[in-house]
Amino acid sequence: MSFDPSAVEAVVFDTFGTVVNWRGSIAREIEVLATEKGWKDVDGDAFARAWRRRYQPAMKLVREGKRPWTGLDTLHRENLDEVLEEFGLTDALTEDEKDKLNLAWHRLDGWPDAVPGLTRLKRRHIIGTFSNGSLLLLTRTSKHAGLPWDVITNSDLFRAYKPDPATYLGVKDLLGGGADGRVMLAAAHNGDLAAARKYGLATAFICRPYEYGVDQSRDFGADQEWDVVVETIEELADRMGA
Amino acid sequence: MSFDPSAVEAVVFDTFGTVVNWRGSIAREIEVLATEKGWKDVDGDAFARAWRRRYQPAMKLVREGKRPWTGLDTLHRENLDEVLEEFGLTDALTEDEKDKLNLAWHRLDGWPDAVPGLTRLKRRHIIGTFSNGSLLLLTRTSKHAGLPWDVITNSDLFRAYKPDPATYLGVKDLLGGGADGRVMLAAAHNGDLAAARKYGLATAFICRPYEYGVDQSRDFGADQEWDVVVETIEELADRMGA
Repeated sequence: MSFDPSAVEAVVFDTFGTVVNWRGSIAREIEVLATEKGWKDVDGDAFARAWRRRYQPAMKLVREGKRPWTGLDTLHRENLDEVLEEFGLTDALTEDEKDKLNLAWHRLDGWPDAVPGLTRLKRRHIIGTFSNGSLLLLTRTSKHAGLPWDVITNSDLFRAYKPDPATYLGVKDLLGGGADGRVMLAAAHNGDLAAARKYGLATAFICRPYEYGVDQSRDFGADQEWDVVVETIEELADRMGA
Repeated sequence: MSFDPSAVEAVVFDTFGTVVNWRGSIAREIEVLATEKGWKDVDGDAFARAWRRRYQPAMKLVREGKRPWTGLDTLHRENLDEVLEEFGLTDALTEDEKDKLNLAWHRLDGWPDAVPGLTRLKRRHIIGTFSNGSLLLLTRTSKHAGLPWDVITNSDLFRAYKPDPATYLGVKDLLGGGADGRVMLAAAHNGDLAAARKYGLATAFICRPYEYGVDQSRDFGADQEWDVVVETIEELADRMGA
């Protein structure tokens, strides 16, 4: 398969882990809160990873139809209750404080290459998110991090969570007119790219070996010959001729 | 009712007519095409207005459930066939040329105050479209015109056309957490604002008396006491404290 970058009009990005550093951002917020509250022995990084471990199981219930469509902010908030319990902090915050803490997901920092890489890629391509995040989460986080998206595509648009085929087919239809190869997915996760390729998207792997910290067990490299394999979004911009 | 701009987090804009000058942009493309093809006596402005006159009736069928969900690019393409017939040009273009002409709606120019006004407003507020346009139409037109949106909300997201209540309630839910007054609609059309107010959005009227040219029969001024009444997006930015 020969890859022609000029056939791609829109490059859409998995966001958590690929563009933004959720682990470092959530850990920092927990550390600030722990200091304010005088909590001892609360490991911000461990808290962030524990919160994230509940992400896939929560979406799985929706994907499998065991639960009606529920947006990610609600799932994050439910998961927070479980994590607080795990850390023995259930009574350490009011409900209002818990709601506020849930918004830590609305102010995630970009990886250092995100803004310079996206700014360059944007010159010749449509750039967008393609994320399981909520529309408000992605809009606020992108504003916080200065990510210069042309368009935000996400779970609220498709009312489905990746890897539901409706998400890949939906973005191919809406941004690619239904044609193969006009939309490219850039992601740090081989599984996401495998689904994207199956449904006709071009693929770019951006290696993020530090996304999960001590929990990282996969995605240290490309599992398949993706159309593009790089280590930063700046390198992706180079490869796309930007 | 006293209006507090600081309660508004997101300002979303009707796009056709309020932010972009569809009539002038479509007229120009028709004039270029007429010159290329050697068509005599084809009035670009009249063609643009004739195309636009079919916009509301086409969406009405979808809104009333007489037709399943159909995106705006398809409606524009169907309407183009009718306009070409009206102008005696049915056989003057190939199907491929007609498809290309339909994309004139994907490269509309902003009103002169759009980029400077939005750029300023974006500093302190989320700014987005709230349009019946398709996601690709809005993304391409915004890139063409340099409109610096944070988020594009549109008919594909709600699978409904304004003034269907699902659109106003949808944007209030997704960008305002369901609360009244956190999302503001800015529009050049009193009817759009009346629906927005009914469903809990703040309202800004931007007067665009030249939108429809000789066809303009309304919206020369504010019909109600909208929260903000201005003549340009730059003035709106002033009023919102940007």
